[in-house]
Amino acid sequence: MARTARPQPVITLTTDFGLQDPFVGIMKGVLLGRCPRARIVDLTHAVPPGDVRTGTFVLLTAGRFFPRGTVHLAVVDPGVGSDRAALAARTLDAYFVGPDNGLLSWALAAASDVEVRRLEKSRLWLQPVSATFHGRDIFAPVAAHLAGGGDFADVGPRVENWARLAWPEPQPIRAGWRGEVVYVDRFGNAITNLPATLALEPSPPAHLRLPHRRRVRLGAFYRAVPRGQPVVVPGSSGFLEIAIHGGHAAKTLGLRVGTKVTFAK
Amino acid sequence: MARTARPQPVITLTTDFGLQDPFVGIMKGVLLGRCPRARIVDLTHAVPPGDVRTGTFVLLTAGRFFPRGTVHLAVVDPGVGSDRAALAARTLDAYFVGPDNGLLSWALAAASDVEVRRLEKSRLWLQPVSATFHGRDIFAPVAAHLAGGGDFADVGPRVENWARLAWPEPQPIRAGWRGEVVYVDRFGNAITNLPATLALEPSPPAHLRLPHRRRVRLGAFYRAVPRGQPVVVPGSSGFLEIAIHGGHAAKTLGLRVGTKVTFAK
Amino acid sequence: MARTARPQPVITLTTDFGLQDPFVGIMKGVLLGRCPRARIVDLTHAVPPGDVRTGTFVLLTAGRFFPRGTVHLAVVDPGVGSDRAALAARTLDAYFVGPDNGLLSWALAAASDVEVRRLEKSRLWLQPVSATFHGRDIFAPVAAHLAGGGDFADVGPRVENWARLAWPEPQPIRAGWRGEVVYVDRFGNAITNLPATLALEPSPPAHLRLPHRRRVRLGAFYRAVPRGQPVVVPGSSGFLEIAIHGGHAAKTLGLRVGTKVTFAK
Repeated sequence: MARTARPQPVITLTTDFGLQDPFVGIMKGVLLGRCPRARIVDLTHAVPPGDVRTGTFVLLTAGRFFPRGTVHLAVVDPGVGSDRAALAARTLDAYFVGPDNGLLSWALAAASDVEVRRLEKSRLWLQPVSATFHGRDIFAPVAAHLAGGGDFADVGPRVENWARLAWPEPQPIRAGWRGEVVYVDRFGNAITNLPATLALEPSPPAHLRLPHRRRVRLGAFYRAVPRGQPVVVPGSSGFLEIAIHGGHAAKTLGLRVGTKVTFAK
Repeated sequence: MARTARPQPVITLTTDFGLQDPFVGIMKGVLLGRCPRARIVDLTHAVPPGDVRTGTFVLLTAGRFFPRGTVHLAVVDPGVGSDRAALAARTLDAYFVGPDNGLLSWALAAASDVEVRRLEKSRLWLQPVSATFHGRDIFAPVAAHLAGGGDFADVGPRVENWARLAWPEPQPIRAGWRGEVVYVDRFGNAITNLPATLALEPSPPAHLRLPHRRRVRLGAFYRAVPRGQPVVVPGSSGFLEIAIHGGHAAKTLGLRVGTKVTFAK
Repeated sequence: MARTARPQPVITLTTDFGLQDPFVGIMKGVLLGRCPRARIVDLTHAVPPGDVRTGTFVLLTAGRFFPRGTVHLAVVDPGVGSDRAALAARTLDAYFVGPDNGLLSWALAAASDVEVRRLEKSRLWLQPVSATFHGRDIFAPVAAHLAGGGDFADVGPRVENWARLAWPEPQPIRAGWRGEVVYVDRFGNAITNLPATLALEPSPPAHLRLPHRRRVRLGAFYRAVPRGQPVVVPGSSGFLEIAIHGGHAAKTLGLRVGTKVTFAK
């Protein structure tokens, strides 16, 4: 990746801080103090408290829509202050900064040319470092350093091992795949781990099977079925997604993260 | 409108995406990738899912407070993926980009020198275009094109017809006007379709009448009445607005979008 | 403070407007129209409607993490349109703009070299000034003026008196301090008015006492106690903070703003 600083470097934020308190704003103050040209984009601050799995899915699906060199700063960090390590990673396209608890792992597993370093150079950090807000004191200063064109090697020593959250790989079954729901969005659409490309194969199954033998037909978009009816569409994040035209699929069909589904003839 | 690109072009966003998921952030990634100098402002992402009417009211009232040349990107798009068209409009003061479902119509009806084009030049878009997220794949790239000073004619052919949502015109009655509530804000204030200027006419009515013969007196500001009392004020969006000093008018008085009111002697 | 304009001046926003309506976005439109280079950061818009005390605590704790010269624009303004004054303040490090109702007072009490002026120069404002949205018509234009390097004396005459909200000073008691909860955050952590430095003194008390004789032990960070257990930590805002490892302390322990606590042997 180009080492020269972009004129308007982009930093994204993904946290479980919510928007009620000034925590996100405070991190932005630190970022702008150290990298005044940074353009800061909120991916989400509504990760459920401590839910590393939701956070890592957000990073996995959102990163590819940002300009090359974007710094993705992520803080879902229930272990803050304990001995969990802090990481920065450089990939072919982006940087990632966050705690070593699996949060970065799905995005890193999908990336090329990954180099990971443990954050140890405390002279980059805000001092004194609090025991409860490393987003402000460690992660934001390191993200600003990288966004501003600072040397990646400055952040700390290279490491080969970091916490990895297991991605639920779809399981091949007879004439198809077994998968599961990995994310539910605000519209109630349930996103699965089944690649959207499965729907593009020659003569794909016509239905996705949910628990209790419920079958949902495949369609090209939400209105491919009558209002109130469920449909499975190739979703915008690259996975098959269960929706209800004009409704809330997760509530109506009882779907949640982990619900098993089958795409087979 | 000046065709030269502003040094810091402004793009506003109005959607029903909420802030739970990374959809808004992803659109911003696309915008900054294609127009790195853009300044992005959220108008709201809390339009109720699919509620085109609330979205068009937001665009109607907010647009005039932005610098000339601002691009207003709006996505409340329950028909995404179907055959509804996509539009961009240029007015004397601004650009608008969004689906052809009425969402842009109240702002366009209030604007001057309106020229509307159907989005058809797919070489401007993100490829491949998904069937479920045109905000990312079509609307954001077109908005970035316009914000960056790209030619308006590049987006597609000019059209003379587009979906228009009927604005509930106040009805003249004996010695006054009959109107209705068009928006309820977070404080519970109920905004009507009656122009605030009605309160400035010589000897205006002293009260607004609500259903069940309830009368609310006219005041200059929220505290013009004792705490807990209702008052009708000339609201900041240019319409008469029903409030309760220190309270939530919509809940207390049973007001919602569509509630009929009368301003007459 | 340096009078020259920063190349990328920072403006923060603290309001009770919520994010449902376009009010915050409209203020940003006014800010960018008058100071196109401004970088705008949301501290929070989730102050409970009219809750000046929460707003002033946010300003107190967040300001110091922003670059010198930042303009903090705050609007929690139940008295909008009445005769309450409007203020701008300059301190050693920052500017503050908002209503004269106590909202700025905790931040000003903690600052050095404070100079306060009453907003009276209406030629800086948006015209006509509404009676219900001074954030848009008065405060935003003045904040943009200051962020853009405009003269502080331009905003209006100097004043020596302004509304001050009493800060609940910790009370010394035998071998310790009596304090109270001043803020509850989204994680349910209850922030007290007791300085975090009390925990660093030689042989501090080992516990904080809550009502009903409940005692919570002191720890260095949230995971210093087993999951589900309460702990008092030196919080990131500089105060002792009551938390539950993996839980919601305020709900579980019945803590709210004003709850009395004692830190004594």
